[in-house]
Amino acid sequence: RRGSQAAGAGDASGGGRGGAQGMLRGLLHHLRSRGEDEKTKSWKKLVNVSVSGAAGMISNHLLFKLASGEVFGQDQPIALKLLGSERSLQALEGVAMELEDSLYPLLREVSIGIDPYVIFEDADWALLIGAKPRGPGVERAALLDINGQIFAEQGKALNAVASRNVKVIVVGNPCNTNALICLKNAPNLPAKNFHALTRLDENRAKCQLALKAGVFYDKISNMTIWGNHSTTQVPDFLNAKINGRPVKEVIKDTKWLEEDFTITVQKRGGVLIQKWGRSSAASTAVSIVDAMRSLVTPTPEGDWFSTGVYTTGNPYGIAEDIVFSMPCRSKGDGDYELVKDVAMDDFLWGRIKKSEAELIAEKRCVAHLTGEGNAFCDLPGDTMLPGEM
Amino acid sequence: RRGSQAAGAGDASGGGRGGAQGMLRGLLHHLRSRGEDEKTKSWKKLVNVSVSGAAGMISNHLLFKLASGEVFGQDQPIALKLLGSERSLQALEGVAMELEDSLYPLLREVSIGIDPYVIFEDADWALLIGAKPRGPGVERAALLDINGQIFAEQGKALNAVASRNVKVIVVGNPCNTNALICLKNAPNLPAKNFHALTRLDENRAKCQLALKAGVFYDKISNMTIWGNHSTTQVPDFLNAKINGRPVKEVIKDTKWLEEDFTITVQKRGGVLIQKWGRSSAASTAVSIVDAMRSLVTPTPEGDWFSTGVYTTGNPYGIAEDIVFSMPCRSKGDGDYELVKDVAMDDFLWGRIKKSEAELIAEKRCVAHLTGEGNAFCDLPGDTMLPGEM
Repeated sequence: RRGSQAAGAGDASGGGRGGAQGMLRGLLHHLRSRGEDEKTKSWKKLVNVSVSGAAGMISNHLLFKLASGEVFGQDQPIALKLLGSERSLQALEGVAMELEDSLYPLLREVSIGIDPYVIFEDADWALLIGAKPRGPGVERAALLDINGQIFAEQGKALNAVASRNVKVIVVGNPCNTNALICLKNAPNLPAKNFHALTRLDENRAKCQLALKAGVFYDKISNMTIWGNHSTTQVPDFLNAKINGRPVKEVIKDTKWLEEDFTITVQKRGGVLIQKWGRSSAASTAVSIVDAMRSLVTPTPEGDWFSTGVYTTGNPYGIAEDIVFSMPCRSKGDGDYELVKDVAMDDFLWGRIKKSEAELIAEKRCVAHLTGEGNAFCDLPGDTMLPGEM
Repeated sequence: RRGSQAAGAGDASGGGRGGAQGMLRGLLHHLRSRGEDEKTKSWKKLVNVSVSGAAGMISNHLLFKLASGEVFGQDQPIALKLLGSERSLQALEGVAMELEDSLYPLLREVSIGIDPYVIFEDADWALLIGAKPRGPGVERAALLDINGQIFAEQGKALNAVASRNVKVIVVGNPCNTNALICLKNAPNLPAKNFHALTRLDENRAKCQLALKAGVFYDKISNMTIWGNHSTTQVPDFLNAKINGRPVKEVIKDTKWLEEDFTITVQKRGGVLIQKWGRSSAASTAVSIVDAMRSLVTPTPEGDWFSTGVYTTGNPYGIAEDIVFSMPCRSKGDGDYELVKDVAMDDFLWGRIKKSEAELIAEKRCVAHLTGEGNAFCDLPGDTMLPGEM
C-alpha cells in the first residue's frame, strides 16, 4: 500500500504540460529545501503539515491560512501534504494550483495523494478532517464504525511514518471517539499528542457570553468546553470570566446561563446549516488555527483553552482512557498541561457525567477498532453534531 | 428603495431569540463605536467595507481575511456591510454568524441587506463581486447587458451614499466593462477610484515565471497585466524581472514566453474549474486582498502592480475612456499613479491593441448603460473568462 499515489503538485498543474512541469517543480523543491535562497538560510526547519479531507470545504479555508503563516508565524516555512480520495484527487490538484497562484512565500512544498502512509510521512502535524458525513437513514452506530475504520487506518499510518512527536488534531466527527481510535492504533506515539477539536464550541460559547454581556469577544476568558463534541458538551459558565470577573457576577440571568446559553452553543452548527445550506467550514477552519496557535504560543497568564485530550491521571475523577475536552495550558512548545484547579459544582458535574457516560458508551461501540474485544453498541440518545462534508 | 432591508447581524443569530439578541447587538455596536473599550480609544476610525455577492464563495474566503486584519493591519477596526439578494439573505445571516463565531477583535460591525443604497452608505471600500454567472446558451452580449445593469445600479447607489473618496474594486465579470459602467453611473465620484481586478492574472503570471525559472515567487517583480481581464489579457514578459534581471535574460525559451506562458495564464481559471469543479474562489480572494494591500501600503522601490483603471491621459497611447489594466504604483494612501516609463516592443504593442479593440467593442455594446446612446454589439471572438458563482 505504500506507493506512488503521492504526486508533487507540479505534476498537477500547467494545463497539460504535466511531465516537464512536474520535473521542474521537483527541481524547485530540491533547490528550496537545500536553502538555495540566501534569505532562507537562517530560517527555521520546514514544518510538515498533513491534512486529510484536503479537498473539502474546511480544508479549502484552512490550507490558505496555514500557508499564509497564521499559525506558525512569518518566519516558518511550511510543507503541506494533502490527503484525499480517488474521487477527490482532481480537486486536490485544483487546490494545489490555487495555493501556487496565491504566491505564499512561506509555502515551500505541496504534495497530494491518497495513501496515508505516504502523505503522513514525517508529519509534524496531522489535521484529520476527512470523515464520511452521515447520510439519510444511517444509524449512529454504523457511522461510528465506518468513520472509526478510517481513523484506525490513519492511526496505523501515523504510527508507522509520522514524526515521533507529531501533534494530531481530529476534526472529523464523532471526533472524540475518532481520536481515541486513532491513538489506540498508534501505540508508538504519545497518546498525549492526540486532540479532538472542541475549539469551535469554545469560540461559540465565548461569542454568546460576549453578546449577552455587551463586551468585546476578547473580554471573555477561562472558557472550558467539557466532554464530548456532541450535544452533551458542557460549556462551563461556572469558571469562565468576563473582564476578569466570574460570569455569574456579570450575567445575573441564571435561567439564560443554565438553559439558553448551553443550547445555543450546542445547536449553533445546526442553525448555521439551516441558514447557510452547508456546514460552517470557515469558522471551523478559524477554530483549527486557534487550536494550533494555542499549542505553539504560550497561554496568557491565568487563562486556558479547551481541547479534547486523552484522560490519564486527571484530577477531576473523569473516567480514564477516553478523549475528553478539558481546560489546558501550553508553554507554546506544542505540548500542554491540564489545568487542575478549576471549580466544580453539582450542576456542572452532573452535566460532565452525562457527557462522560456518552463517551464510555461510544468507546464500547468501537471496541473492535481499539483492540479491546467485541463491540457492544448501546448508545444513549442521538447527540451527534451536524457533520462536515 | 432606501429602506429597512439592512439588518444587524445580531438579528440573524441566537437561534430563535432574534428580537432581544438584535437589540443587544445594537447596544454592543453602539458601545463599541463610542470607544467604550479603553484599548480602542487610540485606534483608527472604523473603516467601512461594503461587499456585493457577499454570500458567494469568493466572499466566503474574503470576508474572513478582511476581518482578521490582513488588509488594513492589526490596529484598524473594520465594519463589514454585506450585500446579497432576496434569495441569499439567509445565507448572509449564516456568514454573519460564522464571522461572530470567529471572535475577530477587529470586526466591530456586520450588517447585511439587499439594498445597495443602504449597504453602500459611507463605504470607504466597495468590493463588487456579485454578478450573474453565464448560463448555458447565454450570448456574451446578453450577459454584458444583464450584468451591466447590476453595475449601473450599484454605480448610482455608490454615487448617492458612499464615502466621497470610496475605492471601488470590480470583480464580477466582465469586470473591466462592468467597472466602466459603474463609474459612468457615479459621476460625483472620482473615476480614478474605480478598479477592475486583474491581480489574480498577475499572481498567476508570477507563479508561472517562478516555476519556469526555478526561483521563489517573490523573486518575480514588475509584472504587468495589460488590458482586459479576458483571454486577450497581456501578461508582459518584456518588462517583468526575475531577481532584478529582465525575464528574457533568465528564460531563454522565447517560444515558451511568447506562446505557452501567456496561454497558461489566460487559461488557468478554466483548467481550475475542470479540476476543482468550481471556480477559484480562494485564490481570487487572496488576489483581492493583494490588490487592496497594494493601495494601502507603499509599493516597493522600483516595483509596480497591475490594476484595471480608467484611461485618461495615459502615456502609452491606449484609447481614452475605457478601463484598462496597466502598471501602477501607490504611496499607500489608497491612491495610485501610472508607471509611465515601461518599455514597449511590436510584439507587446500588437497584443495590447487587440485587448484595447475588445474593450472598445464591449464599450459600444453597453452604450445604453453608460449614457452614451444606443448600444451596438459587434464583439470579436468569445474571450470571456470563466465566471464566479
